[in-house]
Amino acid sequence: MSLLTVGSVAFDKIETPFGKTDKIIGGAATFITLTASYFVKENNLVAVVGEDFPQSMIDVLESHGVNTEGLEIVKGGKTFFWSGLYHNDMNSRDSLETQLNVMGEFDPKIPESYQDCQYLMLGNTSPEIQMRVLTRLHNRPKFVMVDTMNLWINIANGDLKALLKHVDCLTINDEEARMLSGDYSLRRAAKTIMAMGPKTLIIKKGEHGALLFQEDNIFFCPALPLEEVFDPTGAGDTFAGGFIAYLAQTDDLSFENMKRAIIYGSAMASFCVEKFGSERIQNLTPDEINDRIGEFKKLASFNLQ
Amino acid sequence: MSLLTVGSVAFDKIETPFGKTDKIIGGAATFITLTASYFVKENNLVAVVGEDFPQSMIDVLESHGVNTEGLEIVKGGKTFFWSGLYHNDMNSRDSLETQLNVMGEFDPKIPESYQDCQYLMLGNTSPEIQMRVLTRLHNRPKFVMVDTMNLWINIANGDLKALLKHVDCLTINDEEARMLSGDYSLRRAAKTIMAMGPKTLIIKKGEHGALLFQEDNIFFCPALPLEEVFDPTGAGDTFAGGFIAYLAQTDDLSFENMKRAIIYGSAMASFCVEKFGSERIQNLTPDEINDRIGEFKKLASFNLQ
Repeated sequence: MSLLTVGSVAFDKIETPFGKTDKIIGGAATFITLTASYFVKENNLVAVVGEDFPQSMIDVLESHGVNTEGLEIVKGGKTFFWSGLYHNDMNSRDSLETQLNVMGEFDPKIPESYQDCQYLMLGNTSPEIQMRVLTRLHNRPKFVMVDTMNLWINIANGDLKALLKHVDCLTINDEEARMLSGDYSLRRAAKTIMAMGPKTLIIKKGEHGALLFQEDNIFFCPALPLEEVFDPTGAGDTFAGGFIAYLAQTDDLSFENMKRAIIYGSAMASFCVEKFGSERIQNLTPDEINDRIGEFKKLASFNLQ
Repeated sequence: MSLLTVGSVAFDKIETPFGKTDKIIGGAATFITLTASYFVKENNLVAVVGEDFPQSMIDVLESHGVNTEGLEIVKGGKTFFWSGLYHNDMNSRDSLETQLNVMGEFDPKIPESYQDCQYLMLGNTSPEIQMRVLTRLHNRPKFVMVDTMNLWINIANGDLKALLKHVDCLTINDEEARMLSGDYSLRRAAKTIMAMGPKTLIIKKGEHGALLFQEDNIFFCPALPLEEVFDPTGAGDTFAGGFIAYLAQTDDLSFENMKRAIIYGSAMASFCVEKFGSERIQNLTPDEINDRIGEFKKLASFNLQ
């Protein structure tokens, strides 16, 4: 099935205890579409960049089969730029610099050829922009998934709650789930958030895995314990991209299949953190993905006689 | 198979956001033996209390089939007392008062009738005391499991490392694993700690579950997401008690069986936190335990076609 991803394509500059980068390709939609390229053929992107965005980076996306017809290039504009410094434990980071640039005026335009998309991934942007995408699609996709962040819970709470009425699946981290619901218990928080609209909820817990909620069903997906976490940038987007792209590939929205999808998402995220930025996600083989899925199976399978 | 548990039997006084208790029965060995009572018949306790320890509390243990022949009562002595206050997130607590009392002079005496024990659980006390137990057993048990804490890693590091050469399994939390190994990565930390002696290592992550390591095998056991955590006191001991008692009951030390054992440990711990102290662990039925195990199966099982 076809996947449409709307979100940021950006420059990142990252420093971790292991080293630092120059400007590299980043942004939620970059990680999501690159990850999705291992699962779906119709991999459509809507995003905005400035005139400073090099063709070589667009080539990276296109070489992975990402349809960039919806990638708007603003003449004279500058691309969204983020620079971050990770601390020693790799669980916390400081944003050193954020230049919204063309993202500040992002008005997502949906090419006619994207209108039949069945799976929609709204990467983290303002809920108002995310809602605009929904209203601009002639037909509601079969499955709408949304990512958000603490910023929008704080400054655009009404917009976010209005949006949530129209989405099938929300993905947020544990801290954000507690903020959005006002409840410390993740199990109660999940009930509160699902009552806002999404029938399916994913609560990401970073190195502690993720919880998948749907009605009274809960599934716990572990994160692979890694010897080295090199750069966590984009891991959450890669996770979401793997999840929705697996669903789009299999076109099966049963809870059993969502469990498989979240394991694929977690597996893809475990690759992402092994190198800077999207480098590892750009260079995967099907065998590597299958082997990693096998590691998850080994990690989490048990047999209660 | 017979189980021997050595550790503290104590008074606890607990305050949580949900309420507070008077002096109630606590201590690592209390939680371990009460939990083990659902799995093994030969459930032997070595501990020390003061003359102030009421017979009614000893009756609680004995009514669960705990053999208290090794429970020393020091005449004129006072029982170990701990008082703690849990914060709103239930993940952190302050110790308000700790009176070592008779635990300060604890010299574990092993009754002759315990000498044939096959499974040994050394609850959290000083590594020097734990080592004394090992030297006082005529034959080495088939399986020796040790719990410890940050205090001993700090002030008795040499004793602890000497002890670890003689144990089969160590259980510690993630923060302690990082302290003991000097490594932030739990996967590398596990390798370092297993090289100190224990072939099997359990790293507890509280509400985030637990990791079981053995050679190159890793198993991730989730914690059940609960609506309410009422009192976390004793959850780690209950977890360890469920783990070793399941192993003792089944007498199977394969990695596959250890996976089952850790799920039983996690299930028992999920009961423990539902009420103050050991109240919930004192009042369980086999059906309740089976149902809870079923919840774990639902929570963590998946099928990768």
